[in-house]
Amino acid sequence: MEVGQVLHMNAGTGETSYSNNSHLQKKVISMTMPIIEEAMTNLYSSTSPSSLVIADLGCSSGHNSLFVVSELIKIVEKLRQKSGHQSPEIQVLLNDLPGNDFNTIFKSLPSFQKNLSSQLESKDAGPYFFSGVPGSFYGRLFMRKSLHFLHSSYSLHWLSQVPEQIENNKRNIYMASTSPPNVPKAYHSQFQRDFSTFLKCRAEEMVTGGRMVLTFMGRKSEDPTKKDGSNSMWELLAMALNDMLSKGLINEEKMDSFNIPHYTPSLSEVKSEIVEEGSFSIDRLEFSEINRSTYYKEYNHSNISEIAANSIRAVAESLLVSHFGDGIIEKVFSSVGHAYFLI
Amino acid sequence: MEVGQVLHMNAGTGETSYSNNSHLQKKVISMTMPIIEEAMTNLYSSTSPSSLVIADLGCSSGHNSLFVVSELIKIVEKLRQKSGHQSPEIQVLLNDLPGNDFNTIFKSLPSFQKNLSSQLESKDAGPYFFSGVPGSFYGRLFMRKSLHFLHSSYSLHWLSQVPEQIENNKRNIYMASTSPPNVPKAYHSQFQRDFSTFLKCRAEEMVTGGRMVLTFMGRKSEDPTKKDGSNSMWELLAMALNDMLSKGLINEEKMDSFNIPHYTPSLSEVKSEIVEEGSFSIDRLEFSEINRSTYYKEYNHSNISEIAANSIRAVAESLLVSHFGDGIIEKVFSSVGHAYFLI
Repeated sequence: MEVGQVLHMNAGTGETSYSNNSHLQKKVISMTMPIIEEAMTNLYSSTSPSSLVIADLGCSSGHNSLFVVSELIKIVEKLRQKSGHQSPEIQVLLNDLPGNDFNTIFKSLPSFQKNLSSQLESKDAGPYFFSGVPGSFYGRLFMRKSLHFLHSSYSLHWLSQVPEQIENNKRNIYMASTSPPNVPKAYHSQFQRDFSTFLKCRAEEMVTGGRMVLTFMGRKSEDPTKKDGSNSMWELLAMALNDMLSKGLINEEKMDSFNIPHYTPSLSEVKSEIVEEGSFSIDRLEFSEINRSTYYKEYNHSNISEIAANSIRAVAESLLVSHFGDGIIEKVFSSVGHAYFLI
Repeated sequence: MEVGQVLHMNAGTGETSYSNNSHLQKKVISMTMPIIEEAMTNLYSSTSPSSLVIADLGCSSGHNSLFVVSELIKIVEKLRQKSGHQSPEIQVLLNDLPGNDFNTIFKSLPSFQKNLSSQLESKDAGPYFFSGVPGSFYGRLFMRKSLHFLHSSYSLHWLSQVPEQIENNKRNIYMASTSPPNVPKAYHSQFQRDFSTFLKCRAEEMVTGGRMVLTFMGRKSEDPTKKDGSNSMWELLAMALNDMLSKGLINEEKMDSFNIPHYTPSLSEVKSEIVEEGSFSIDRLEFSEINRSTYYKEYNHSNISEIAANSIRAVAESLLVSHFGDGIIEKVFSSVGHAYFLI
């Protein structure tokens, strides 16, 4: 499976779109906002730049894609007013894989820019320039020494490919407690290769003194097969797919060759890759926990099983369609909804 | 009508798409290639850059959108091999209005890059980075002093808006021989404002010594109402719309308030704006003629009326739908096809 050519969050603004099923992702961005603000404040204070290039890697489409950007612009505008400097020109680079729905983001830009101007209440703020950059962040995306600030939220848990030689991970589609020991090992190696490649590429692209805030799903435990948020999400999907298998809707060979290119590293795994790669120093490295059920209640959605099914569907549908075809999709996610109360 | 939010070439790759109805535009690009090559050769020879930023303004989608880019990259690669320099990093910025079908271009990039590499036959060529830049080129699009080479083909004949105060241009939708004298005057003023704004914005964005190649539809005659290629295209469409009016399918008020935001300047009009604005010097200013019917025969399409209808549809459908709704589109272009042999 060519993950870079296949994976994309569900497009548009319909019921099963990523846009309508990424409230949790927005909550996560809000949680990390104080860290983002601190990083941008440090960057601005140390350089007072007359131009500033900000990249958001794995921006997807929908409500969240421009949320951080607008917050970052407001932070910069506050800082430059306080310091009495002229407003810097800001270039915003929105990156995701080539299958991402960039058209929807681009069409929303005129009204986004209008709203932003009215919120800034300053006639001499900006100008702001926006680009879409299609491509995998496990390769070079930008010119040498061209980025000042880099943000990526809820993207770096996606691997560049399904780890190799895990054909024996039968009936599972991820690292599960019943996976053979080579499976979590292969997943970890793939994460190491991918994350260090990511760091190497960004080291070439960032200016000296630039700042990077990366947020991704991780695990609390050092044991990768221990049930946690991400594991239980894929466990739900595995149950639904095994249900399809038992009904003869998919065949064994297809089931056994499907695995999710996703990895949730522990804090120590992240740290050791950054230290080993050597290009970046760590200002802050933190683990935060979010209780999905509590959050969904807060967000006032009564049907948690429906949310769970839609949120998995919004991110994983493209992978499933590319492997199994689109005939089983409705059945799979109806089954995911039913299975929710079983785990 | 907000042209910037409405106008876009027909998306996708279907029968009425711009992609399938822009062969003439490709022919035009081929005709201008010697000029493009000369401009890039001058730029490279005078600066031997280690990084190079190329922008294509009004790129649209389909076959042509990356054609010039690939030619430009090949020219640079040839020059740098000849000079023995290292390959520069090249950033390609693809611009069009926010409604353009960027998704289709982005999805084609992986195979485009693969083909390009195989054509270059040099392992150390590149790297090449691609971005989409949504927005009107009658405003700033890029950071200050960031562009080295700018290309725009078959776009600058689109105005930023329909000229004001031409409500008396009844039954016409463009400058026609029966238009009142204020109509061509208003069109010309709008062109002057738009083209000088374009030049001012680009002057801020381009590096000193950068090169720009602009190709657009123009007229041979100094008289703007004289029938030529572009006039006869809109005359065909006007006949079809008047046919809809006589059949009661559109109303008079709608017909009279519809005008095409398009202007074909003469060579002297182009020259005088460039000289007056003052930021750029002219290396070459040329008029070339292309006989559409001869070209279509060359390109081996037997049904010229169908080509004419589809080529107008591919560029004007978005404007018509936004003004008249989509109910009349099929009828209008069937009528355009029939009218072809009448003018």
